[in-house]
Formats: sequence, structure tokens, C-alpha cells
Amino acid sequence: MNELRINGDRLWASLMELAKIGATPKGGVKRLALTDLDKQGRDLVVGWAKEAGLAITIDQIGNVFMRREGRNPALAPVMTGSHIDTQPTGGKFDGNYGVLAGLEVVRTLNDMNIETEAPLEVAFWTNEEGSRFVPVMMGSGVFCGAFSLETAYAAKDTEGKTVRDELARIGYMGDQVPGQHPIGAYFETHIEQGPVLEDADKVIGVVPAVMGLSWYDCVVTGMEAHAGPTPMGLRKDAMQVSTYIMQEVVKIANRYPPYGRGTVGMVQVFPNSRNVIPGEVKFSIDLRNVNDELLNIMHEEMLAFIDKTRSESGLGITVERVSYYPPCPFHPDCVGAVRAATEKLGYTTMDVVSGAGHDAIYAARLAPAGMIFVPCKDGISHNEIEDAKSDHLEAGCNVLLHAMLDRARIAS
Amino acid sequence: MNELRINGDRLWASLMELAKIGATPKGGVKRLALTDLDKQGRDLVVGWAKEAGLAITIDQIGNVFMRREGRNPALAPVMTGSHIDTQPTGGKFDGNYGVLAGLEVVRTLNDMNIETEAPLEVAFWTNEEGSRFVPVMMGSGVFCGAFSLETAYAAKDTEGKTVRDELARIGYMGDQVPGQHPIGAYFETHIEQGPVLEDADKVIGVVPAVMGLSWYDCVVTGMEAHAGPTPMGLRKDAMQVSTYIMQEVVKIANRYPPYGRGTVGMVQVFPNSRNVIPGEVKFSIDLRNVNDELLNIMHEEMLAFIDKTRSESGLGITVERVSYYPPCPFHPDCVGAVRAATEKLGYTTMDVVSGAGHDAIYAARLAPAGMIFVPCKDGISHNEIEDAKSDHLEAGCNVLLHAMLDRARIAS
Repeated sequence: MNELRINGDRLWASLMELAKIGATPKGGVKRLALTDLDKQGRDLVVGWAKEAGLAITIDQIGNVFMRREGRNPALAPVMTGSHIDTQPTGGKFDGNYGVLAGLEVVRTLNDMNIETEAPLEVAFWTNEEGSRFVPVMMGSGVFCGAFSLETAYAAKDTEGKTVRDELARIGYMGDQVPGQHPIGAYFETHIEQGPVLEDADKVIGVVPAVMGLSWYDCVVTGMEAHAGPTPMGLRKDAMQVSTYIMQEVVKIANRYPPYGRGTVGMVQVFPNSRNVIPGEVKFSIDLRNVNDELLNIMHEEMLAFIDKTRSESGLGITVERVSYYPPCPFHPDCVGAVRAATEKLGYTTMDVVSGAGHDAIYAARLAPAGMIFVPCKDGISHNEIEDAKSDHLEAGCNVLLHAMLDRARIAS
Repeated sequence: MNELRINGDRLWASLMELAKIGATPKGGVKRLALTDLDKQGRDLVVGWAKEAGLAITIDQIGNVFMRREGRNPALAPVMTGSHIDTQPTGGKFDGNYGVLAGLEVVRTLNDMNIETEAPLEVAFWTNEEGSRFVPVMMGSGVFCGAFSLETAYAAKDTEGKTVRDELARIGYMGDQVPGQHPIGAYFETHIEQGPVLEDADKVIGVVPAVMGLSWYDCVVTGMEAHAGPTPMGLRKDAMQVSTYIMQEVVKIANRYPPYGRGTVGMVQVFPNSRNVIPGEVKFSIDLRNVNDELLNIMHEEMLAFIDKTRSESGLGITVERVSYYPPCPFHPDCVGAVRAATEKLGYTTMDVVSGAGHDAIYAARLAPAGMIFVPCKDGISHNEIEDAKSDHLEAGCNVLLHAMLDRARIAS
């Protein structure tokens, strides 16, 4: 069994073939959910699945399950999956790798005439990126009941087109009720989307959990005034007061290493004129941690600092939590299967907590789940220059193969 | 002579009449330079001047000089003036007050049949605001030779219309070569555009000088990356590094009181997305002081701090000085005339250095000049809610009357 390996060249060739659909001049991919290009991508992958002998099921939100039957069809399938929709300026690997790695596992087992006890399934979930329609992770979210099919159907793009209409238009509105589809275990391979593996020079990231996150909108209200005639002591400078909160966001994250994160990514200044003291500044705050207790302490410390800043500065400051996801620990059985496969295959490895969201978070609500990370160049994704090494993608796919076989068992 | 006073009600009525041209629903005025509305405003003021017996001269950049002859026409005129163009969301008083206060001085002298030795002139300068066409203070700038008539003529608005064409179109391209017009002394009354007088509860600001200013564009370049997967220690967060420079701008100003000013008014963050660490931040820096030596020290301290921040953070930081005006001290004779008039009339007073630019800065290059400030509500201008008290405007006009008489002398 130690010898069983997937075909890295075939995996790479499939990735490059799929990346032609929606290819951008800068080497990336633009294949937004439920567009004509998404349909072309789906058709290509489904065609490959049929060639590999897989049976196709599509549910009402357009999630596609591609099944390789097991010796015991009554067992819940061991599933792997991800998504093939991309960001507007996305890359070739984000999501696509997880789907095609699953397809490559199946092709390898076909080549070797290996039968599994439990069925295997490769899934791709609708609209993971959320670039065209919100909420993000739409297909897996509906599947696990995080929000309703009606909510998802009603979502509109900027032109007013709905998910319902676009799904029907491209021919991917299936019959199966979302969620009425068993999962025995779920794995997802993905590029890391961060710099940790590359920085530590490791090939495989075992993912014990996904971080929780809290998102906030903060508004500091001062008084706009001329930059010249207004003495320093009479100012209510919303930008200056904001800088202290912005610095505290980072200080809070640094107080809770190694998984504390604090980011101010979006800033809007009013009136944003060179010679006018800012009267209002709006900015986002993004706090994350893998430990919910620590995330809550970070939340409380931030609110306390804002209260202190409000009373010391005399300016108006409001802060509103606009989003919250608790941390998602993955199942010991799946994490263990990934770790064991990695060790068996001899890859360099480390644990990497996922800082970004993935369909696996929603799958984990219904079944034991785990993830496998491989490095991506400079930690960059959601960008046309997103890149990954063929060797690393092959290694992640080998780990997926052995982790899935661990859960599905080879028929003897 | 202590008894001579202008007619405050008439001044107020004229201000309100002029403010109807381009009146906005929020109570402000939108009368951009060289528009049809500017023409209507000019025509109204020129009409009033003619009714008051004044002779009109227009120069090639559209500056208008309205002359009340003196007993000795060979003497250079004692001039007062300002502008009647406004910001897009401007108020009723900025500029307009200075012009109509001059007209009210003339009307008062007419009422009292007072003749002066030197001629008096009331001027309004073209395009002081610079909202439609840059550079700002265009008419007075051409007049004093700060830049050429051709430069001004070539300036275009956002629709591509030139100053030359628009000036001709509204009928205000005169014959006189700009600057070929003597000035014996120049006074300008203006709302303070700052909160100092109101805060100190004084009626008249004697203006010894206008601050110098240095404007900079600062660009901090880090690396954009996902807010979740990127550990704090591996970040190059352009926003965080920027906050330290932004705070230093204010600290530097506070080290050089009472006339040090430091403002970050404009901030642009890229890509400005909630879950992306900013890869680049551009922001403006505005440093001012009334003392050029101190302004230069502030400049040097800021550059040194930026150098230190660059080497400590490892991020790319560039800073470019995009504008510089040296401080402009007013002439002791004119400042003294304003101070003497204020004391004679018994108004509460203090010295207020101007933090904003005015046509008087350019006039001061050619003749002794001085300014008179009156309070404006909450220090607000360049805003439709700009407001000033009739009593204060009357007081400022009375000071102008006596300061002009001081320089022009009553014919005996």
C-alpha cells in the first residue's frame, strides 16, 4: 500500500485544462458562479467524471456529487470536494485543486482496479467564492442548513439576476433536496492561501481547525474643519483617533499568539480632502483566533479600548459586529487520517490552522471532516498570480488518496 | 471721526441678495468661477458699484476694480477686495463679505459726502476658490506675477472648458494687462474660517500674517495578503505602518505651538477590502506654521521619522513634497491701521494668524497689505452651513472703513 500514488502529471494537465475556461491575460481565471463559463467548467468536470465511470447527482442548489460505487453501497460515502467557481481576478488552483484532486484519486483507483468498501464521492459546491452572489459558501451552506434554499435562490448579482434563474439557465438546478445526501467522512485539499508552509519549507499542512472570526464596522465621528485655521487643541480629528484603535487591533492580536489575527483592511475617510481635518472615518476590524474563548477575550478587549478612546477623545465612536463565525475544529478521525497518510508517505509536514473559510466548515456540521493544505507561492491567492508547484499538488493528492482509503477501506 | 459707522443692515441685505444667485436648498451658495451664475453675481455687484458712482476697470484675467476717485487721482488707490466665486457647496460669506464690505464702505462715504485724498478701490478677483479651475487664487496670482496669464487661460474644468473661453463667454475678459494697476495699500475682510475668535469670544481678529504650508504625498507599500491565513509576524501591513506616521504628523505640530499645524486629510487604502491586509496606503500630509524656520524644522523632523519608520518596518515608504507656500507676514502699516481702528471703535480683539490662503497673500507681494477677521459659527466655512453674525460682519466693516480712511486720509 505504501507504493500507491496518484498521477501528478495527469492532475496537473487537468488543472491546466480547466484553467483555460475563463483564462485571463495575466495568467489567472475569471469563472464566476453560474455564468456561462461556470457551466463550461462544470460540463468539463462532469464529462471527465463520466469517463471515469462516476454517477452524477445534482441537488437543487446545483451542488454536484460524482460517485464511485463501493462494495457496500449502503455505507455513507467518503467524500472529497471543493469548488470550481473563482474570484473575478482568481487563480487556477483555489477550489479547482480540491475537485480535480478528488477526480485524480478516482482515476488512480480505476487504473489499479481497486475497489473500496464504502462508496467514494467527489463533490463540487455551488458559489463558494461569493463574488457574484452572497452569502459565500452558498452550496455547502444550503446543504448543511446554515441558511435556506429560498435565501440562496433569492440572492441577486449586481445586474439583478437571481441564483434561481441563473442556476436554471445553465442547466444545473437538480432534483435532490439539499442535505438529503449522506456523508460518511469529508476531506478537502486546498492551497494554503497563506505563507506558513512556504515560510517553514513544509510540503503538507495538516489542518486541525479553521479559525473563528469576528467582523466589525467602526465609525469615528469628529468635526471636519480647515487644516490651516483650526488650532491643534480645538480639533476633533476623526483620523487621528482612528489610528489609535487601528493600532490596538494589531496589538490585541499580538497578545494572543500564535493564532490571534487582527486586521484593518478597509478605511473610508470623509470628506477625504487634503486640507480638511477628517470629520468621519469608517473602517473595518477583522479579529480571528482558533480558540473561541480567546476570540471572545479579544472582542472584549477591543470594546474596552474603544470605550476608553471614546471617553478620552470626546469623539463619537460606534462599533458594530457585522459577522461572526465560531472556530471549527475538524474531527480527530479525519485529522488523524490525514496525519497518518502524510507520515506514511514521508512528506515534511506541520499543523496549519486555516485562517480562511472553506466548504469543509459546513460539511463538518454533518460529518467528520478534515483538510489537507499544500503551499502556494508567497501565500498569495484570490489573485491572478496565484501559483503552486506541481510536486506539492501531487503530494497533497497522494495524502488525500490514502486518507480517503483509510476511511473507506479497500475491499479485500 | 469716532462716530463714523457703516450701515450694517444694508451690508447684510446686500449679502443676502447676492447669496440668492446660486442659492442651494441647504442654505448655501454654489456659484463656481466663470459660470453663468458667476456672471450674474458679477453683474449684480458691478451694477451696485455703478449706482454708487464707481468707475469699473476689468483686466485680462477678469479681475474687476471699482474705483471711487480721490481728491488726488495720481495717488495709488487704497484697495480692498476679495472674491465672489464659491465652493461647490459653499456659503454666503466666504469672499462675498470682503467684496460687499468694500462696497458698503463706499456707500457710507457717499452718504456722508466724505472725500478722501487717495482714491479708493473695491476689487473682486477671479477664481479664488480653485474648485472649477486650478490653480487657486488665480486672478490675484496672475495679477502679482505668481504665474502667467497663459497658464491661467489654459486651465480646464472637468468638461475640458478653458478659463480663456469661459471668461470670454461670460463677458469678463477685460483689456487691462494684469498687474498694470497700482495699489497703494490693500485690506481684506474675511470670515475667520477657523474657531479661534469664537472660542475666545472676540469680535475682531487682527491678522499679522498667513501661515506657510508644505503639502506632501506619502505612499507606504507593503504586501496585500489574506487577513486570516497570514500570521501577524509575516505581515507587511501598509495601514499599520501608516498609522505611526499619521500620529507623528500631529505630534510634530504639537511640538511647535501655537501655530504648528499637522493634518492627514486624505487616505486611500488598496485594495480596501475587509479581509485583505492593505498592500498600499497613500495619504496626504499638511504641515503649517507661521514661522518659516519652524516649518522647515517640522519638515525635517517628519522626513527623519519616515526614514526611521522605513528602516524599522522594512516596508517601502516614499514621501514627495507637492506644494509649498512660505509664510506671508502682513505689512506693519496695514496691520497697525487695522489694530488702531479696532481699538478706536472699542471692539474686543485678538491677533489671529490666518491658516488659510487669501488673495491678500498675492496682493501683499505688490503693496502693503493687511486683513481683518470676524468670527464664523463653529469655525465652519466651505460648507453650506457656513454662518456669521450680522453684528460681527458690521464690526469688521467698520474696522475696514477706518483702516482705509487711515491710509487714504480724509480730504480736508
